[in-house]
Amino acid sequence: MSKQQIGVIGMAVMGRNLALNLDNRGYSVSVFNRSNTITNAFLKKTQTKMLEPHYTIQTFLRSLEKPRCIMLMVKAGEATDSTISSLIPYLDPGDILIDGGNAFYKDTMRRQRELSTQGVYLIGTGVSGGERGALVGPSFMPGGHKEAYAVIEPIFTKIAALSEGKACVSYIGPDGSGHYVKMVHNGIEYADMQLIAEAYSLLKDPLNFNNETLAQIFSDWNQGELNSYLIGITKDILTKTDKDGNYILDLILDEAAHKGTGQWTSQSALDLNEPVSLITASVFARYLSLLKSQRIEASTVLSGPKLQTISINRDEYIETVRKALYLGKIIAYAQGFSQLKSASTQYNWQLKYGEIANIFRAGCIIRAGLLQEITNAYKDNANISNLILAPYFKSIANKYQKALRDVVAYSVLNGIPTPTFSAAISYYDSYRAKQLPANLIQAQRDYFGSHTYQRIDKSGIFHTEW
Amino acid sequence: MSKQQIGVIGMAVMGRNLALNLDNRGYSVSVFNRSNTITNAFLKKTQTKMLEPHYTIQTFLRSLEKPRCIMLMVKAGEATDSTISSLIPYLDPGDILIDGGNAFYKDTMRRQRELSTQGVYLIGTGVSGGERGALVGPSFMPGGHKEAYAVIEPIFTKIAALSEGKACVSYIGPDGSGHYVKMVHNGIEYADMQLIAEAYSLLKDPLNFNNETLAQIFSDWNQGELNSYLIGITKDILTKTDKDGNYILDLILDEAAHKGTGQWTSQSALDLNEPVSLITASVFARYLSLLKSQRIEASTVLSGPKLQTISINRDEYIETVRKALYLGKIIAYAQGFSQLKSASTQYNWQLKYGEIANIFRAGCIIRAGLLQEITNAYKDNANISNLILAPYFKSIANKYQKALRDVVAYSVLNGIPTPTFSAAISYYDSYRAKQLPANLIQAQRDYFGSHTYQRIDKSGIFHTEW
Repeated sequence: MSKQQIGVIGMAVMGRNLALNLDNRGYSVSVFNRSNTITNAFLKKTQTKMLEPHYTIQTFLRSLEKPRCIMLMVKAGEATDSTISSLIPYLDPGDILIDGGNAFYKDTMRRQRELSTQGVYLIGTGVSGGERGALVGPSFMPGGHKEAYAVIEPIFTKIAALSEGKACVSYIGPDGSGHYVKMVHNGIEYADMQLIAEAYSLLKDPLNFNNETLAQIFSDWNQGELNSYLIGITKDILTKTDKDGNYILDLILDEAAHKGTGQWTSQSALDLNEPVSLITASVFARYLSLLKSQRIEASTVLSGPKLQTISINRDEYIETVRKALYLGKIIAYAQGFSQLKSASTQYNWQLKYGEIANIFRAGCIIRAGLLQEITNAYKDNANISNLILAPYFKSIANKYQKALRDVVAYSVLNGIPTPTFSAAISYYDSYRAKQLPANLIQAQRDYFGSHTYQRIDKSGIFHTEW
Repeated sequence: MSKQQIGVIGMAVMGRNLALNLDNRGYSVSVFNRSNTITNAFLKKTQTKMLEPHYTIQTFLRSLEKPRCIMLMVKAGEATDSTISSLIPYLDPGDILIDGGNAFYKDTMRRQRELSTQGVYLIGTGVSGGERGALVGPSFMPGGHKEAYAVIEPIFTKIAALSEGKACVSYIGPDGSGHYVKMVHNGIEYADMQLIAEAYSLLKDPLNFNNETLAQIFSDWNQGELNSYLIGITKDILTKTDKDGNYILDLILDEAAHKGTGQWTSQSALDLNEPVSLITASVFARYLSLLKSQRIEASTVLSGPKLQTISINRDEYIETVRKALYLGKIIAYAQGFSQLKSASTQYNWQLKYGEIANIFRAGCIIRAGLLQEITNAYKDNANISNLILAPYFKSIANKYQKALRDVVAYSVLNGIPTPTFSAAISYYDSYRAKQLPANLIQAQRDYFGSHTYQRIDKSGIFHTEW
């Protein structure tokens, strides 16, 4: 009996669709799920070519060519650990596990260490593109042993999304770097989504526009600089109705859930001294959204200004919001890529930022025209300290900073919460400040804790008896 | 030979001053430092009553009454672990270690578990008040085994700061709760300091005031609602000159260092779904300050508006900044106490928030008139979900929210970075928003990842084929 080329464990939507993607591209795939019912339900609904279900780990593993290539598409965290534990007794040196879940990068590094003691490889790979991406071509961010990646590279190249004919996959680096890059990708995605949500609220109430008009604006925006997957789906979402003709968006409860990757991005940034204020503001915005009952109470006791609607120069206002959104988005990406650079230095990963931007260009949730400009910026200067200093971004910033200011000032004076737009202009003004009031903080620290300070007029470490 | 009542390990400034504080209050103290030179240098400079130096761990431990009470005043992290390891072979069941460093609360919990296997107690205690507080009376936030705390309570009560005759110490709770509360205290301190620094920059440049005039403003503020240690020292700092008559503040490099507690507070908040945006903004502000060379470069290429100075109604402007600062501070405290509540629930610590505010009232860096209002709020309702909903704070918020808006709009339009003031108004407006645009985020998540959503018109979990 001939052996199967690759195995997939975990038949939730991402695992199913990746298995189908592999099958469609001519790979022979064995699949396994802890519960057989799920596997059977999946196979019943699907036409496959060379997909083979297995109902025990042992037969599943026996069905695979060696070295075995096994994609784990199970829940991040304990489920991944227990799946790996169940495999370990039957694996051989040289076998390659590929964790395609949103694993925490430090978990990936620990698992790599543990598995390496028996010669088994673990590639931790980001998989982006949601369920549809998994089926027709996601973007992959694989990290781990380079020699193990070489084995699976042909497969990944074949099933990945294409951007201008090039597969959206590239070896990211050693260790947990693949999952790290995916984590930051998701962090940027949080910021991008929150910025769009704030733009939506800045258009909806002040202009008193209905969903069709709003959809038209997002549709227009999607033709220009803002062109991106998330702007495109926002347009679709705005006009989708249920069978009774109601706009679904207007019936959705305003509590945004999350699965942890945005939070991890912020937590890692805090470790790395990286001020990723937009990603963090968007994570906090989701947390605040979850306090619905407190918000309802607060809305009755905490006052604010009356909203001044926009009645004249509406097109100008819309264009101002568009510019603010684009600059906000640029700052979010600049912060995310700055964080990648710090992580790369910290862990000695030697990340290739331009390549990463390239991988993000198709398949990914954050795919956007903007990414080409990021790739270009790193092509010009692979070591740029912050994207906002690169020619294209600097020029947009200088042209659009006033719009961002105007939008934030308007929203603050009108009581519209725009935490992420606000974080964007605060970051912009802090970053371009030759002088910050941090001298006072250093003086206070020295006053109460003898923490010392440096001076601008001579070198050394100083302390004052205040 | 009679035994000594307490031991102190670590003769850096905090350890030295605590040992002197104990000695001054009539306790017999043994001291030990890894390097003898430090111990001797300290003793040479000091008059003590019953302070006994020791030069080996063994004689140090033999000198103490049993059960031994030993304060560890060493650097948080590895130094604490290695100190504990060096003690372990010589400790007896019932001995009590008291870690007075800024330990990470999870480290404290781990050490408590490890030490408990040989019957040794570890009290993890926050010690606040800086070096002067340690000498004349700090505030203590002790957490750990209650029966062990009972042994040391008389000592702590005697050497703590007094607030209206009451010692600033109270048993916080089990586990690492003492260090957790100290961590959040420090997080609030970061926000408080950053808000003051932003207020300083809002007064300095727009009004073009010199340090003497600025000091007068802070001095005036210190007589009113803003009365606090940090406002008081800011006034002192502004006018302090070096021997050449230069204002020291103006010569201090604007790079604010940090030792991790603010970062930990934000990271824990991220774990707990707590949107502590002001603490986090102030941590990020310190990180941004450290990018001095990038900032200098950015200042030459990224543009902003010309500052419109304030020439009329200066007193009104100053009062607006004062109100914004006070409301910002209230929101920072409200966020911090909300985080304490989440942590208390998560770890089952049953924290007493009013008591905690009381302990903060003297000794601590964040001591402020405001804390009495916090204690009062929890006296009225021990279970309040967010301080800003309590009568006093709600009333201030309603009176001052316009000032906070005006200050943020002014700073944003004038290119003055005020990340923490901005975070304050964003939080305020988000918290009082009955409706947030998070419905769009849920729709997007369901669109690309089938993450489902809830509806406002019927219960259940929904998914749309968008």
